[in-house]
Amino acid sequence: MTAELKNDRFLRALAREPVDRTPVWMMRQAGRYLPEYRATRAKAGSFVALCQNPELACEVTLQPLERYPMDAAILFSDILTVPDAMGLGLHFETGEGPRFERTIQTQADVDGLASPDPEQELRYVMDAVRTIRRELGGRVPLIGFSGSPWTVATYMVEGGTSKNFSRIKGMLYDQPAVLHSLLERVTTTTLAYLNAQVAAGAQAVMVFDTWGSILTPKTYLDFSLAYMQRIVDGLTREAGGRKVPVVLFTKGGGPWLEIMAETGCDGLGVDWTTDLSEARAKVGDKVALQGNLDPAVLYASPDVIREEVRQVLESYGRGPGHVFNLGHGIHPEVKPEHAGAMIEAVVELSPAFHD
Amino acid sequence: MTAELKNDRFLRALAREPVDRTPVWMMRQAGRYLPEYRATRAKAGSFVALCQNPELACEVTLQPLERYPMDAAILFSDILTVPDAMGLGLHFETGEGPRFERTIQTQADVDGLASPDPEQELRYVMDAVRTIRRELGGRVPLIGFSGSPWTVATYMVEGGTSKNFSRIKGMLYDQPAVLHSLLERVTTTTLAYLNAQVAAGAQAVMVFDTWGSILTPKTYLDFSLAYMQRIVDGLTREAGGRKVPVVLFTKGGGPWLEIMAETGCDGLGVDWTTDLSEARAKVGDKVALQGNLDPAVLYASPDVIREEVRQVLESYGRGPGHVFNLGHGIHPEVKPEHAGAMIEAVVELSPAFHD
Repeated sequence: MTAELKNDRFLRALAREPVDRTPVWMMRQAGRYLPEYRATRAKAGSFVALCQNPELACEVTLQPLERYPMDAAILFSDILTVPDAMGLGLHFETGEGPRFERTIQTQADVDGLASPDPEQELRYVMDAVRTIRRELGGRVPLIGFSGSPWTVATYMVEGGTSKNFSRIKGMLYDQPAVLHSLLERVTTTTLAYLNAQVAAGAQAVMVFDTWGSILTPKTYLDFSLAYMQRIVDGLTREAGGRKVPVVLFTKGGGPWLEIMAETGCDGLGVDWTTDLSEARAKVGDKVALQGNLDPAVLYASPDVIREEVRQVLESYGRGPGHVFNLGHGIHPEVKPEHAGAMIEAVVELSPAFHD
Repeated sequence: MTAELKNDRFLRALAREPVDRTPVWMMRQAGRYLPEYRATRAKAGSFVALCQNPELACEVTLQPLERYPMDAAILFSDILTVPDAMGLGLHFETGEGPRFERTIQTQADVDGLASPDPEQELRYVMDAVRTIRRELGGRVPLIGFSGSPWTVATYMVEGGTSKNFSRIKGMLYDQPAVLHSLLERVTTTTLAYLNAQVAAGAQAVMVFDTWGSILTPKTYLDFSLAYMQRIVDGLTREAGGRKVPVVLFTKGGGPWLEIMAETGCDGLGVDWTTDLSEARAKVGDKVALQGNLDPAVLYASPDVIREEVRQVLESYGRGPGHVFNLGHGIHPEVKPEHAGAMIEAVVELSPAFHD
């Protein structure tokens, strides 16, 4: 746990400090596009079992680092560990995605939720963090994460993924007090969960707000950003003598980057629907930006990938504050060599954008 | 067909002319939320059969007008009639959405597409337009429509609805010439199709770009907006001595409203993720705006619906150029009384926003 960090490009970029080249990692970099991941998952038996086994979670977390010169590792886990520990009973149906045995429809349902202790009910996550830190041996920093309270709440109310989000939106417009009460509970648990990850060794944290973009501008502020603000305010921001940066990512949140930057977070994730040049103009020197290659570019040939990487680097422009990433998680169908072509292009082309 | 138009609020609002109150209609107003629609669909046997039967398509088109004081009717049809007529073989699988028997993967596939004559292969649509105009008897104007070439092409390449749009995005990045060739063909057919609808009696047209928002800013311009521009340029813009307005709607297109307004279209659809006040500030006097109540508001109680309608009206503000609508199609689970509460609120509250 105390091994010195050998590669701190990622942390330096999030602090908007000079770097020799742009750091790079990929959302879902430990994932199904890698045959070695699929083998480990088969060994675990199921996705949930893989998340709950610290040794195997560590194994898949490190797999992309063996293949590629990544500048960060991200804990292998799922945003739905939190509502599972709050008592909803998570399972994954093949081809169907996540399902909960119980859902939240009323104030009584909210009142019946558990308040898990991260080192008890979610100890398997903290053990994974400790195991990964030990096995990383200071090669690169480890990112911990959670879902945003709004995004986690969508699954808790809908019971799984949703097309129209009719239940949670009905609750939002018709029973806003119940929804706020749910979001309060999820926020409290999420904050304890993230701080436990930091205590266990996470060196940065990211909050994934996958579904913030289904909201109107006003309801986004009230039901999603307000609760991410509370997480930013309550997070442990230093550990082991080093700042622990926090990155917020609302997919489709391009229109809201300015107000997100006001939260006091260190970085913002940007998806491919907003140019980084425009995003940078909006947020100024307030935060670093992480993104934003269209994940579908990785279906193209390595030459095309290289050119698209160059365009993302140019769009951000010169100077510090950029972490290269995809604009969303890598798709399962992508060939590993194509991910490699992207990372190689960042390594080779990005030094020209730094002094 | 020559009956005088008794209610022209919708056409006047799109021309940014004064009106006594804000006109209102709903995307998918002839749809599954209405029990009478479900009865007619059952009679037709399937969704495709309903689209292809002019008498029954007319019947469902008029159903919402019997219930509510709507200011426009919209042709009951589907955006996939065009690729079906181009030879791909459309069918709908229960619970699965649309599927094509054949898909477009190569230049040879594009070259093999048919060039349908709208009055032959798509005559059932034109017959529906003529029947509806006759049965409307001038009560309100009839809106014709198509998908945008990009949106239609996504279904032609993916074979149906898609999660990651991996095939068409792979084509976009790896074989852009093939995709442009496909978009050319779809644009030519779509333009002929829309002009045939106008010749048959459509008094306004709307182009639905449901999937433009999955593109990057640059690829949106090149692969979606450029082809909508060609449609705007080639459309018959006058019929029966009256202007035929065209409305473009890119779902999630809030960031692109300014450039969309430059096409020379008459109106822009706006979804609920962009405030109308912001949209209006962006487009100025160039175009009218149509929208943008969150369809999920209709899950709430009538009192909440009324308040949310008021907020949309206030967000647009005083003066001409607003057509009230949902920000996307009405959801099938909505109670018809709730749709009625929305329309009643527009009728009652909107006169205060006009001189």
